[in-house]
Amino acid sequence: MSDTPAQAATRSRENTRARLMDAAFAVFAEVGLDGASVEAICERAGFTRGAFYSNFDSKDELFLALAASVSEHKLTTITERVRALKDDAGRPAGPVEVVQWLVDLSLDSRQGVLLTSEIRTRAMRDERIAAAYQAWLADMVQRVAAIVDDLVATYGMRLRMPASAFAQLMLELWESTSVNALIQRLDDAATGELVRTRTLVLAAAVVEGFGQ
Amino acid sequence: MSDTPAQAATRSRENTRARLMDAAFAVFAEVGLDGASVEAICERAGFTRGAFYSNFDSKDELFLALAASVSEHKLTTITERVRALKDDAGRPAGPVEVVQWLVDLSLDSRQGVLLTSEIRTRAMRDERIAAAYQAWLADMVQRVAAIVDDLVATYGMRLRMPASAFAQLMLELWESTSVNALIQRLDDAATGELVRTRTLVLAAAVVEGFGQ
Repeated sequence: MSDTPAQAATRSRENTRARLMDAAFAVFAEVGLDGASVEAICERAGFTRGAFYSNFDSKDELFLALAASVSEHKLTTITERVRALKDDAGRPAGPVEVVQWLVDLSLDSRQGVLLTSEIRTRAMRDERIAAAYQAWLADMVQRVAAIVDDLVATYGMRLRMPASAFAQLMLELWESTSVNALIQRLDDAATGELVRTRTLVLAAAVVEGFGQ
Repeated sequence: MSDTPAQAATRSRENTRARLMDAAFAVFAEVGLDGASVEAICERAGFTRGAFYSNFDSKDELFLALAASVSEHKLTTITERVRALKDDAGRPAGPVEVVQWLVDLSLDSRQGVLLTSEIRTRAMRDERIAAAYQAWLADMVQRVAAIVDDLVATYGMRLRMPASAFAQLMLELWESTSVNALIQRLDDAATGELVRTRTLVLAAAVVEGFGQ
């Protein structure tokens, strides 16, 4: 069944956005946020500047859309897994196992960590980026808090702080640990191990009866 | 009493370093780390490039020295206050009061927060900065952990995680909250209130019997 003209136009637009975002990520990986010009991104994607500006107001808007799309995908996956609460073999998962999933899914690639960190620095100096960054962060906290609430209800556990405070701490721990691991030039396995260990230490302190 | 020639030379060198660091902080505040050229810093301080390079290997080395000097001063002040454990009126301080001091002293100026954040981003891309940044962070964690150990011994409290893990979490919480407050354009009073509230929530979860 072929698309109607309107459907084809929407698909083409989505395809253009996706290709621009892929190209932006590749250019960013090579030269950083300051160095990644709209020209270089367009050249990489094989589009004109006209195509760029009919999809994004600015380079910063594109990079924010990129960061949001990565975290959106991760959070949706985590939420689905936690709702199901079964491990790969179909057995009910315990809280320690669930923390492991959360950590595995929370880990960013080296470029993802760099991107988030550069966007954060930019948000401190630029009001438009600041507003978008805050909205993104608030959404992440709220979604991780909802996952925590689900888990607490399922396992009948008690938190020693509100779920949103715990969610915010975990997001900060993941971010800081990923940044520090990158600064220490740790590989993915060592980074994952570090994040997992620190998350379990935090969970054991905040969640009464965790892992017992 | 006048200096010996050697003492005078040392004092003059320290004075040059201090004036270069002050000038660098002022230039950084105006144009950021990338924009702050050695030329602009020298011009502001009233020194030649020769004077600069006889004191610092590079601009990055100067900015790291600046960040380290700020945190060194803060940590020394905190350690002295905690050792004394008396409030301004000479009464013994309680744990909640001590957290308040820690927070008040941990708060950076807007420019201090921006500087630390830009150095962190730079450390992810540059190995020399990475090594210096890691050493600085490890020193801070170790010093805050020593303060926590002192407090725990003094008040006979029990921690639900090792003191160094707690210290690292607090440093990350202070850093993230200061950055987010700056992104939200909060004033100093609102920022302090937010950091204090979050620190107390964390301490209440991690420290058994805290504030009771």
